[in-house]
Amino acid sequence: VSRRYVAFAPDLFATRYAKTAHGAIAYGSDPVVAVIDPALRGRRVRDVLPYLASDAPIVGDLASTRPFAPTALLLGTAPLGGVLPEGWRSTVVEALTSGLDVVSGLHAMLGEDPEFAAAARVGRATISDVRAAPPPRLFTGAAFGVRAVVLLTVGSDAAVGKMTAALELTAAARAAGTDAHFVATGQTGIVIAGRGTAIDRTIADFSTGAVEELVVADGDAELLVVEGQGGIAHPAFAPVTLALLYGSAPDALLLVHRPTRERAEGFATPIPPLRDLVALYEALCATVKPARVIGVALNTGDLDAAAAEGALVAARAATGLPCADLVRGDAAAFYAALRPMLAGKGSPR
Amino acid sequence: VSRRYVAFAPDLFATRYAKTAHGAIAYGSDPVVAVIDPALRGRRVRDVLPYLASDAPIVGDLASTRPFAPTALLLGTAPLGGVLPEGWRSTVVEALTSGLDVVSGLHAMLGEDPEFAAAARVGRATISDVRAAPPPRLFTGAAFGVRAVVLLTVGSDAAVGKMTAALELTAAARAAGTDAHFVATGQTGIVIAGRGTAIDRTIADFSTGAVEELVVADGDAELLVVEGQGGIAHPAFAPVTLALLYGSAPDALLLVHRPTRERAEGFATPIPPLRDLVALYEALCATVKPARVIGVALNTGDLDAAAAEGALVAARAATGLPCADLVRGDAAAFYAALRPMLAGKGSPR
Repeated sequence: VSRRYVAFAPDLFATRYAKTAHGAIAYGSDPVVAVIDPALRGRRVRDVLPYLASDAPIVGDLASTRPFAPTALLLGTAPLGGVLPEGWRSTVVEALTSGLDVVSGLHAMLGEDPEFAAAARVGRATISDVRAAPPPRLFTGAAFGVRAVVLLTVGSDAAVGKMTAALELTAAARAAGTDAHFVATGQTGIVIAGRGTAIDRTIADFSTGAVEELVVADGDAELLVVEGQGGIAHPAFAPVTLALLYGSAPDALLLVHRPTRERAEGFATPIPPLRDLVALYEALCATVKPARVIGVALNTGDLDAAAAEGALVAARAATGLPCADLVRGDAAAFYAALRPMLAGKGSPR
Repeated sequence: VSRRYVAFAPDLFATRYAKTAHGAIAYGSDPVVAVIDPALRGRRVRDVLPYLASDAPIVGDLASTRPFAPTALLLGTAPLGGVLPEGWRSTVVEALTSGLDVVSGLHAMLGEDPEFAAAARVGRATISDVRAAPPPRLFTGAAFGVRAVVLLTVGSDAAVGKMTAALELTAAARAAGTDAHFVATGQTGIVIAGRGTAIDRTIADFSTGAVEELVVADGDAELLVVEGQGGIAHPAFAPVTLALLYGSAPDALLLVHRPTRERAEGFATPIPPLRDLVALYEALCATVKPARVIGVALNTGDLDAAAAEGALVAARAATGLPCADLVRGDAAAFYAALRPMLAGKGSPR
């Protein structure tokens, strides 16, 4: 389905809570033609967030998006807990009755809401809950046998740039002629890729099976770059991280880190040193299928150039691994580190 | 609710797949008055499984249980994947229409099945899906502040005896005068305790929150002994294990091991050495809230006495920790190791 999106992010577009909107603008195959955020109306996306490099206008309400001929409303924020803010209800109903599809990454399933279902019938519109879970299936071990080299991005915390790192590495591999696929495992990634499974929404017993299913489905590629979730040291989200770590049966890991993050998102627990994180991720993999961390990707979006360079030097010294700056640099170093593995695989084990 | 159970375990009662039936017989507060297993009909429970020490008769079908005046049918096995075997359907309908409540630990929610719901109305019976998930809530960190000392049982694999170890330790602590509570986190434990949450059935993002809720609800006890699930080295179930490890915010861990188990249940991956498992569990806890393994409980049910003693000696040598045999010994050593912690806590941190 090719769409023209309006991204709905009232009062939050400039914040990291709007990461679904930002991701769709930066990496989506379908264009975001307008953004709704009354607090920023009259400006353009690039005025607010220059790195997104988009001229899409920011307007105050749904009616004001008509000149841009959208075909779908994208709920562009991911509130903690995934509940629909009550103030959004009227806009969702208005969109559906006027014939706009609604795409949601919330835990709450909008398609199961009677008012939304009725509005969709009126407008002949569809509701796409990208976080809807696939049918339950247990992990079988089939992921151990795929042809593709599998790389998983893992984090020093939640919300540090694991999806961005995966997308950038996929692009670098494709630019070098490798048949690389991005495997989406969260709501923003699914909006960008047009497919995938939100692992955080699966039943815990079947979470590894849901990851395995994604890897097996794309297993004939040369390289699968799997979007990681959460962080192994995050008190709330680590089980989802581990579902990715075991379910994707990776051959290699890429550790993503935000040097300014000192404590786990939402908690007082400190982020462990990079060396400890590398050792912990590798020790977990060793119990099931060994995999090494092949590099550290830094998210330096909130550092100046000198501080970013300092963070790179420190990360190299701490880990002895290839390190690159995702904001000021590129993912070529990680692709280079993967190349010997690509040559060595290529037939099912 | 006080019940008189019939445990339904056709063709499987003598196997480990009937662990829900075995647990209810060994530890349940409500009696199991009969077992249905056509393959073993005419015998008594203690003839088949002497350690259960029960005279309950084994019969071939539901009609034959009438003389024992049951009030509820307990689905006594936990098939992998948790789907209802199609051959069980007629017995479930027969039980409900004749007025027996049905208690199920399957992933499949029997209460949502139209045929079962109709049968329950006919017989004025209830359907209790003990694995039903509580309302979603995120982990908040409230578990870090409970008054109780929290001990979690962790495993070298799935199905090694974590629930039994937790029940035995709870009993040892109570015998010594400590206000200890068993916290049930799986279907068998819930049947035994009459309450709890099946963590494997929760949505992955909320799995740590569901564990936290159990610990906070009982947080004023002196000692909470939390039933662990799966194993950190199990390819399929480790995310549930980690939800328990972080969500319960334990002060101490008890590692449970079955010396004869060489590979992860259902997979070819070898069980890591005990030392590595201790280090891995402690390294994970260290990232969120430090906790130490205070002992190793061995499940020696499939060893003779000499081999069991050898396994104990080997476990002590490998870990340097208090080790005890759950089958031939008791949990007093672990309670002794916990005592200094009980004296030191007692007010909220």
